[in-house]
Amino acid sequence: MTGAVEQRVRRSFEKQQVMKTFGCVLEQVTPGAVTIRMPFRDDLTQQHGFLHAGVVATVVDSACGYAALSLMPEGAAVLSIEFKVNLLAPAKGEQIVARGRVIKAGRTISVVSGEVHAVRGGEEHLVTTMVGTMMVVSGRPGLSD
Amino acid sequence: MTGAVEQRVRRSFEKQQVMKTFGCVLEQVTPGAVTIRMPFRDDLTQQHGFLHAGVVATVVDSACGYAALSLMPEGAAVLSIEFKVNLLAPAKGEQIVARGRVIKAGRTISVVSGEVHAVRGGEEHLVTTMVGTMMVVSGRPGLSD
Amino acid sequence: MTGAVEQRVRRSFEKQQVMKTFGCVLEQVTPGAVTIRMPFRDDLTQQHGFLHAGVVATVVDSACGYAALSLMPEGAAVLSIEFKVNLLAPAKGEQIVARGRVIKAGRTISVVSGEVHAVRGGEEHLVTTMVGTMMVVSGRPGLSD
Amino acid sequence: MTGAVEQRVRRSFEKQQVMKTFGCVLEQVTPGAVTIRMPFRDDLTQQHGFLHAGVVATVVDSACGYAALSLMPEGAAVLSIEFKVNLLAPAKGEQIVARGRVIKAGRTISVVSGEVHAVRGGEEHLVTTMVGTMMVVSGRPGLSD
Repeated sequence: MTGAVEQRVRRSFEKQQVMKTFGCVLEQVTPGAVTIRMPFRDDLTQQHGFLHAGVVATVVDSACGYAALSLMPEGAAVLSIEFKVNLLAPAKGEQIVARGRVIKAGRTISVVSGEVHAVRGGEEHLVTTMVGTMMVVSGRPGLSD
Repeated sequence: MTGAVEQRVRRSFEKQQVMKTFGCVLEQVTPGAVTIRMPFRDDLTQQHGFLHAGVVATVVDSACGYAALSLMPEGAAVLSIEFKVNLLAPAKGEQIVARGRVIKAGRTISVVSGEVHAVRGGEEHLVTTMVGTMMVVSGRPGLSD
Repeated sequence: MTGAVEQRVRRSFEKQQVMKTFGCVLEQVTPGAVTIRMPFRDDLTQQHGFLHAGVVATVVDSACGYAALSLMPEGAAVLSIEFKVNLLAPAKGEQIVARGRVIKAGRTISVVSGEVHAVRGGEEHLVTTMVGTMMVVSGRPGLSD
Repeated sequence: MTGAVEQRVRRSFEKQQVMKTFGCVLEQVTPGAVTIRMPFRDDLTQQHGFLHAGVVATVVDSACGYAALSLMPEGAAVLSIEFKVNLLAPAKGEQIVARGRVIKAGRTISVVSGEVHAVRGGEEHLVTTMVGTMMVVSGRPGLSD
């Protein structure tokens, strides 16, 4: 069961060009929960040298979106319809780890929650939380996963 | 007056590595309002070929942040503490235009609002709205603008 | 056209017990936009004597929800699935006016935006903004408007 | 230590007229976490007979605000500057329980998270989640707790 879910998420992840561009790695996929890791990148920083809030949001939105997709029926596609992030601390360190999970999986929408930790000297520090709403898009030709 | 404000925002924008990486152009700066334009980029897309929601968020967060900075006292730095985006339509087209403006400028926090339009065949289509809170950070050595 | 829309919204508003309890008045209904007015009430305040943020949210959520309902097909019901409020200034004065409008009306979800002004000495002061997502619920027995 | 914190929160809770009006009970106060219980009330419902989303938001905003206050220095006051709620399921049952806790306590702002469960037949069902930002207001005459 988990095998098929993981394959489905991995196939879609491979198609997210931005994940490749950012150097993201899809680390863990279980039904309802996904982890993505990204190395710190100087070319994705804001003016103070921290990872830009939007870059952090990109990674955790993908983690949450795939957590939602992992519970959706075959053939459905996932779309973010809204999310909110709270930036608790500057995203600096060797890498960031974004974990997304499903709070409630519905027929047409799913509510997701995510956390991003910055890894500094091997220790994780919570830098961002996200809560969002994902849409289950079905029967739209050309749109899946 | 506007000259100094614009210079301050431009100087900070130049330091945002992610803006360079995304190919963003700081188009317009007036006190309390900033416009940033980004060409469509295949390497920043999600799995269906649209610009990733987080990438769109990055551009509009910068526009909103700089709108806030444009009204802050000299020496202060701007930090996003939270934002929410609503993804109204897929971000596809030749380019996106993000406009940020200040709803309320306070001593310690400012509330900002932003809109992103996708430009397709010369016409603008609203794809994303943002509302967020920016912090005025003062007297922290090494942190300005 | 507007007549039927207004009647539909007014009928549903009459069923919102909380509106009666708060003393709210449905002031204006046009397709996609609704205004609700509430007198200041000492029994709905927080510890500093301002209207509680959640009370303000109640009024503007109703205004936004009815703005969304006004554009929905007959027989559908409206449900708030999420909203965010920014509290810009204390809600104090003689009354508050909440205006909701639809930013995007979709088949399954609508995105709405609202503003609340406090009226003091006849002048309006912006105290709260809201952005939210409303769901179109169809074909669920016993659930309409 | 906890005794003084609890007393401070209880004193402020007593001044929130809206809590009295809603019949809310301050159930538990520990540093950084607060629980408030409210009986189901027909006079606070929306058009389908569920508790209005804004009423639920009122209770969980108070729980989160007091969780934040419980960690603030003496003399400071707490103000909600923004919050977002996700309405996962209709708020119906015998009562609701709102639990707020601090995710990050800062010098000028605190980030809080809350959950609301509806109690039906003795069982708790998650109906709403909240995330918000609270401000530490100091040195403003007449404004404390």
